[in-house]
Amino acid sequence: MTEVPQPIAELYRDLHRHPELAFQETRTAGIAADRLRAAGYDVLEGIGRTGVVGVLRNGDGKTVLLRADMDALPVEEDTGLDYASTVDGLMHACGHDVHVASLIGAADRLAQTRNEWAGTLIALFQPAEESGGGAQAMLEDGLYEKVPVPDVVLGQHVGPAPAGAVGAHPGPAFAGANSIDITVYGRGGHGSRPETTIDPIVLAAAIVLRLQTIVAREVAPQETAVVTVGRIVAGTKNNIIPDTATLGLSVRAFTEDVRVRIIDAIERIVSAEAAASGAPEPRIHYAESFPVLVNDVRGAERTNDAFRAAFGGASVLDPGEVSGSEDVGLLAIAAGAPLVYWILGGADTPSYLAAAAAGTLDRDVPSNHSPHFAPVIEPTLTRGIEALVTAARTWLSRDRERSIQG
Amino acid sequence: MTEVPQPIAELYRDLHRHPELAFQETRTAGIAADRLRAAGYDVLEGIGRTGVVGVLRNGDGKTVLLRADMDALPVEEDTGLDYASTVDGLMHACGHDVHVASLIGAADRLAQTRNEWAGTLIALFQPAEESGGGAQAMLEDGLYEKVPVPDVVLGQHVGPAPAGAVGAHPGPAFAGANSIDITVYGRGGHGSRPETTIDPIVLAAAIVLRLQTIVAREVAPQETAVVTVGRIVAGTKNNIIPDTATLGLSVRAFTEDVRVRIIDAIERIVSAEAAASGAPEPRIHYAESFPVLVNDVRGAERTNDAFRAAFGGASVLDPGEVSGSEDVGLLAIAAGAPLVYWILGGADTPSYLAAAAAGTLDRDVPSNHSPHFAPVIEPTLTRGIEALVTAARTWLSRDRERSIQG
Amino acid sequence: MTEVPQPIAELYRDLHRHPELAFQETRTAGIAADRLRAAGYDVLEGIGRTGVVGVLRNGDGKTVLLRADMDALPVEEDTGLDYASTVDGLMHACGHDVHVASLIGAADRLAQTRNEWAGTLIALFQPAEESGGGAQAMLEDGLYEKVPVPDVVLGQHVGPAPAGAVGAHPGPAFAGANSIDITVYGRGGHGSRPETTIDPIVLAAAIVLRLQTIVAREVAPQETAVVTVGRIVAGTKNNIIPDTATLGLSVRAFTEDVRVRIIDAIERIVSAEAAASGAPEPRIHYAESFPVLVNDVRGAERTNDAFRAAFGGASVLDPGEVSGSEDVGLLAIAAGAPLVYWILGGADTPSYLAAAAAGTLDRDVPSNHSPHFAPVIEPTLTRGIEALVTAARTWLSRDRERSIQG
Amino acid sequence: MTEVPQPIAELYRDLHRHPELAFQETRTAGIAADRLRAAGYDVLEGIGRTGVVGVLRNGDGKTVLLRADMDALPVEEDTGLDYASTVDGLMHACGHDVHVASLIGAADRLAQTRNEWAGTLIALFQPAEESGGGAQAMLEDGLYEKVPVPDVVLGQHVGPAPAGAVGAHPGPAFAGANSIDITVYGRGGHGSRPETTIDPIVLAAAIVLRLQTIVAREVAPQETAVVTVGRIVAGTKNNIIPDTATLGLSVRAFTEDVRVRIIDAIERIVSAEAAASGAPEPRIHYAESFPVLVNDVRGAERTNDAFRAAFGGASVLDPGEVSGSEDVGLLAIAAGAPLVYWILGGADTPSYLAAAAAGTLDRDVPSNHSPHFAPVIEPTLTRGIEALVTAARTWLSRDRERSIQG
Repeated sequence: MTEVPQPIAELYRDLHRHPELAFQETRTAGIAADRLRAAGYDVLEGIGRTGVVGVLRNGDGKTVLLRADMDALPVEEDTGLDYASTVDGLMHACGHDVHVASLIGAADRLAQTRNEWAGTLIALFQPAEESGGGAQAMLEDGLYEKVPVPDVVLGQHVGPAPAGAVGAHPGPAFAGANSIDITVYGRGGHGSRPETTIDPIVLAAAIVLRLQTIVAREVAPQETAVVTVGRIVAGTKNNIIPDTATLGLSVRAFTEDVRVRIIDAIERIVSAEAAASGAPEPRIHYAESFPVLVNDVRGAERTNDAFRAAFGGASVLDPGEVSGSEDVGLLAIAAGAPLVYWILGGADTPSYLAAAAAGTLDRDVPSNHSPHFAPVIEPTLTRGIEALVTAARTWLSRDRERSIQG
Repeated sequence: MTEVPQPIAELYRDLHRHPELAFQETRTAGIAADRLRAAGYDVLEGIGRTGVVGVLRNGDGKTVLLRADMDALPVEEDTGLDYASTVDGLMHACGHDVHVASLIGAADRLAQTRNEWAGTLIALFQPAEESGGGAQAMLEDGLYEKVPVPDVVLGQHVGPAPAGAVGAHPGPAFAGANSIDITVYGRGGHGSRPETTIDPIVLAAAIVLRLQTIVAREVAPQETAVVTVGRIVAGTKNNIIPDTATLGLSVRAFTEDVRVRIIDAIERIVSAEAAASGAPEPRIHYAESFPVLVNDVRGAERTNDAFRAAFGGASVLDPGEVSGSEDVGLLAIAAGAPLVYWILGGADTPSYLAAAAAGTLDRDVPSNHSPHFAPVIEPTLTRGIEALVTAARTWLSRDRERSIQG
Repeated sequence: MTEVPQPIAELYRDLHRHPELAFQETRTAGIAADRLRAAGYDVLEGIGRTGVVGVLRNGDGKTVLLRADMDALPVEEDTGLDYASTVDGLMHACGHDVHVASLIGAADRLAQTRNEWAGTLIALFQPAEESGGGAQAMLEDGLYEKVPVPDVVLGQHVGPAPAGAVGAHPGPAFAGANSIDITVYGRGGHGSRPETTIDPIVLAAAIVLRLQTIVAREVAPQETAVVTVGRIVAGTKNNIIPDTATLGLSVRAFTEDVRVRIIDAIERIVSAEAAASGAPEPRIHYAESFPVLVNDVRGAERTNDAFRAAFGGASVLDPGEVSGSEDVGLLAIAAGAPLVYWILGGADTPSYLAAAAAGTLDRDVPSNHSPHFAPVIEPTLTRGIEALVTAARTWLSRDRERSIQG
Repeated sequence: MTEVPQPIAELYRDLHRHPELAFQETRTAGIAADRLRAAGYDVLEGIGRTGVVGVLRNGDGKTVLLRADMDALPVEEDTGLDYASTVDGLMHACGHDVHVASLIGAADRLAQTRNEWAGTLIALFQPAEESGGGAQAMLEDGLYEKVPVPDVVLGQHVGPAPAGAVGAHPGPAFAGANSIDITVYGRGGHGSRPETTIDPIVLAAAIVLRLQTIVAREVAPQETAVVTVGRIVAGTKNNIIPDTATLGLSVRAFTEDVRVRIIDAIERIVSAEAAASGAPEPRIHYAESFPVLVNDVRGAERTNDAFRAAFGGASVLDPGEVSGSEDVGLLAIAAGAPLVYWILGGADTPSYLAAAAAGTLDRDVPSNHSPHFAPVIEPTLTRGIEALVTAARTWLSRDRERSIQG
């Protein structure tokens, strides 16, 4: 018997209307805590500032941690949805509301069906995934002293695949990432007297263009690497040359070698371009860091097998290496447990297939972080709940031996 | 007998402590109005929003308009002065406080000495010079229906010349200027998936570098031209590729031909660079426009002669063409009157001479709009008052015929 | 019994001393033809201008084509070898001399051991691989009307892997490539009057930097793509701004989608950058094109198995996708036959391992096309001969049925 | 009586058909020497390799040196003239053939009219003006030990002003110039493996774009400065990343301060951009240097007065500062004599006026060094001869005292 999804859909719309920034997810956390308590979980709140964990002990067996992240993004929503964000400049543009709603639904379902499985279930609602500090904050706040150390960490990320599709990529699956803030120091002055200044905007522009050569020329073509400048800010008035400019970079790689090579090249280029301008040494600040997310190979295959059995083979895809990043891996590494983290499709399937046929996927199917990102509610939510339940049950067999042998 | 400058110096420090942005100069305007009234002027307030005009009718003769501008800049002061700005992020970095204090001092002096001259004196305190709308706003508000149309417009700008020096450059003296706001439209997305986006930051950087070729390659080396990008803003988060980027440009030229050539080149480059990115046509907004400031040749020479007679030849310099811009010319053009606008030195003379000898003027003498711009109070203020009085008296002779023949 | 390699080593040194450009390989072709004839082959010369083919009919069985390419590169050798190139500005910098010497050795060996195998052997010496026209020229000259159509096409490329190592990558193995010549049209003039010109060198530089964004921003990070500007030429004198500039591009991709996306982006950028300069539309000439080289999956695995059996597993590696390109695939496509093309290591093994341990492979082990590229003669040549013989014998079993079933 | 210009026009066409590069002007020099001898001059040949000097002593008086330069340029002519260059890749694109023909004509005229003046006339035909070594070479070869030291040096340059117009700019008139050759060192390799290389073409492109910021941002807008990259060469094949790239720069300025500032900026940028690429320090070679050409102020005014008297005021213009460079000044400096060097218009006047009215001068009137540069033969040559004669006669009065007082 499948639970009626209506209430979860309503919950989802409500979450979508009320996005909250990293470490400020108090409303979302409160909802999650209430629901977990209502479903019979022991609930801990305020772990890592706004994190919430529910524990359901259900006899001997494995301990499975299901994780959802809660934070939204500083993006101005432009979806035209009737349940669009009500907060100016904030949006669930990365789909964490799907993660939260799915995990609440799955936690309910698993609680209701507890006679069918055995073990311990941990439902974890993490803050601040986007800014990369949430998982670490929960660990530093003593997470694994407060709840059992899991035998496996499971989770999912909604993305621009057809709604209903799921799948985990074995091995390195999400990129390692660094967030880097750079401030270059020129010398300001009147816009009409550039010769008395060192123009930090020209310097910043030269850096942006030179950074393009890292991926284009310095990383082997076979390697996966990204250097994005997502933020540039300088000046207040057209006719004043400012003193400084700031650049916000995001770096991705799937191996430590490539990551180091990129970082070295950024430092070399930024420093040298400042020298080319006759400017002082810039300041490079390493703001956040995500490790490479590595799915356990056997665990991923086992999960994909379970998905195939539950949803049919046509619904299971291998998303390959995803250039996005995730800090869920920290929860597994700290536990010494395998990680299985899969992709959950959220795109309207007919539109997706039409765009795929036309070769216009990138144009017509909005991806995460876009102001147009809008997963279809169904079958996305139902499949998101089912995937969490199915994956969890793979480890939570009442016959423990059988589950180990997979 | 020279008036004791102490009260004016105090007034100056007070103005410097309380900078106000364009069209918000209510405190400054109030002070000016009070002082004019106290000195016996008929005062009109709120012309062009915050503009103030005082009229002193003193018998038959020429009508002379003395002009000071009042607005400050969004610059964070970094002078270390004990009378530094008390307003975060605002500063009299262009020295308009010197202009205001000098004109108040000169208006006083001329009122006190009215038995020595004849004619009509207009002391005009203009808002919003920096943003280029103040003079136009006063004219559109009916300035010359409310006060007599002047026979000459006089004014001064403090700058990084030795304090005590003054001088007007005959002919084109300050550049024509355009302030241009450009918005480029990319397509945003996740920082890890650049291939799904059109990166507006890379586009903006390419535009900034390409714009350098206008002055370097498209304008004749003998011409005076400036294309400054004083402002660039895009993005909110390092790992989100934004949808748009905005650039704020300031353009200067001394002839209409060159100005048109530059504008054409900007439009050509901005449009083509967007095409190179596969981006839509950018939006180019012409925010403000200053005409070339042209000093009346005979009037400038006559004023310089009067300065030489009053202050000695060593104090009078020809500043040459200044690449900054000014909207004072609009007040003269609208009146059909000649304009004489001179430079007033404000730099500490020993420091200036040492820097000049070392060839480090650009480095060691802060120029207008710098957070370090700090005219020495004396002899700057005394000379600023004297220059206004001397120039005005050149037109306000009691013997009208003699003054006409100069 | 293994043939003494000395004569082949001498032959190799002789070939290395006498590099010949594409379609000018008359000396090399003559040597190959003489050797083939001496070994008992029927020899055809002048196929595709300078191509040579030897056919050895040895009873019923498969027809196997072994291919070597002959042309050298316009590179000034800087190896310091005592057998370095004697031709100014020309060098066997891509190791085709290794291919030729190995194929001569293998043809000899297979002729000497003809009692051990059955079938037909074709030894093909192809011109002009580097310029991409050689295989096509031989086909257009009626190759497969003059010699039997092969059942399999085999060949090898020496590269910076440890000498002695071999291995074929199943599936797409070498990139598809385009060679593109671009001419931009400015307007020349005196170097001191840039405003009268359209500077084609500034335009070319802007194109070079903008092209970097294709790989960095427009191709998915997971895809393999290269856009190299290998040649730029403009101007004759420092103080003359020239009329034109020419750029020579080389493009690589492993899928047609990516190749088309890159070509589209190049056309878009080149055209728009010309527009940004106010220059006429540039000329884009597609000079050469290599398809993606796709190794037959079963054939590659079978060949690798044979290598493992013959040389030990430690000598067989999977080189992965190679971003270089090869036109050998055309010979297989035209024959409707599977292709197996493997990498042959040529680097001094101790040096290679030391560099690998130090992470300085790119710096310390010269790659193909470098003026320092210098394969060690042994064991490279011996292994090159053995690999060709081993692979050929896999198809040329006397027991035909067994060989078919692999 | 004015000499019939036909023979000089024929001579001009012949010179135009036979351009010769710097220091190779043997045919031109031979013609000049023959003509001077025929006119009665004492002739010295081979001064500074290919230089020719004729001396005509005509009683007491001033010594006047008239100078023409002889060398052509490596430009492929594209004028369509029936007397176009017959030498591939060479052209009198700077009009030195006009200078030579005019001086031959003037030397004839002055010899024929020697009864009308007194003094010593030196007709000097200089090699290698374009490459900047010719004047220096003649001086180092003992010019002023072989001929009298002149009291004044006179000369002219044809340019895109209306034919018939002449005029000398008093004071700094032609820019000082440096010719600079830069070699950047990357690390070559295969075009498909950029990560193993340091790409010198990307580096060179980054330098070219960064150099644009010198004139755009580092030199005061009021100053005259040029940084031209007239030459860029790298690579031989599209798919080989070369080891090096070379850039040829030409720099102009009217003051030593600006020249030094530019040179410093070039060195800073080139060095830093190499560092940004991780490349070794580039090599910067200062190939040639021209000083600022300074016309004697009184001499220029006197010459312009004589032109006005001879040709009418409408034919005399002030060309202003010319951003081109000339080494004629060295001949005056070495003699301690004043220099007067004027512009001679060569453009078809109706076409010039139409283009001026349309604002398309830069587009429609080819300037020096353009492959389309084609002065109209008349009135250019007649005016060129007359101008030399008129200017020379200003100093060569029979009444010496009067001529001194001008």
